[in-house]
Amino acid sequence: MPTALRVHHLAVVVDDMDRALSFWRDALGLELAGIRDVPEQASQVAFLPAGEAEIELVRPTSGDSGVARYLAKRGPGMHHICMSVDDLSGTLERLAAQGVRLINPEPMASADGRRYAFVHPESTGGVLLELYQA
Amino acid sequence: MPTALRVHHLAVVVDDMDRALSFWRDALGLELAGIRDVPEQASQVAFLPAGEAEIELVRPTSGDSGVARYLAKRGPGMHHICMSVDDLSGTLERLAAQGVRLINPEPMASADGRRYAFVHPESTGGVLLELYQA
Repeated sequence: MPTALRVHHLAVVVDDMDRALSFWRDALGLELAGIRDVPEQASQVAFLPAGEAEIELVRPTSGDSGVARYLAKRGPGMHHICMSVDDLSGTLERLAAQGVRLINPEPMASADGRRYAFVHPESTGGVLLELYQA
Repeated sequence: MPTALRVHHLAVVVDDMDRALSFWRDALGLELAGIRDVPEQASQVAFLPAGEAEIELVRPTSGDSGVARYLAKRGPGMHHICMSVDDLSGTLERLAAQGVRLINPEPMASADGRRYAFVHPESTGGVLLELYQA
């Protein structure tokens, strides 16, 4: 098994950040490591480490983003799982060769340079899965 | 922050275990630590460790269980997040005192003796959350 293959974060779409933080931070006791705007995703994201993984609370900041449409259609809740991998490009090639449906067949790069790609829920058993270059 | 507060497992409801394993085990490369029937949940569960957390694939084995109804209503996908806590009873008391809606106000015990309780999605931002006594 690739050594880096582990749960990196869980993204939860919320409509009310203060209310979500009142549970995950204030009631449950997770630490809020930071909260910041992510303009390229039209979202505000709160980062709450939980062991080696992290809970990310994602609140859309405009009505026409993918996350906003998800929230409008399905309501608040789990958006995706992210797992880190050793070799993102190699993993994507291997998955494609096995017939896995990839939303991003090639790695994408976020504004801060991290590389990621999404796997379609059709191939995972209904879970939107992000793979992240460790 | 309580030291044990971390992601313990992610439960994914699937309708076809072989197809789900062909992704999570064969294509992605997770190890299948075990697969077993859980009669009290009318399910078959596959356990795939991923770092300190675990992906659990849950397939209903009868049509009238909670998991089967979930699958029929929402299709395959994320069912719940489980986080481990140091002091389950104390955590439940503290959550209740802060107005959090608990599905199990007192710890439940599984057939193998582990103690757990579920928090209602209404209080978490739409996520069904299991808390597990570490």
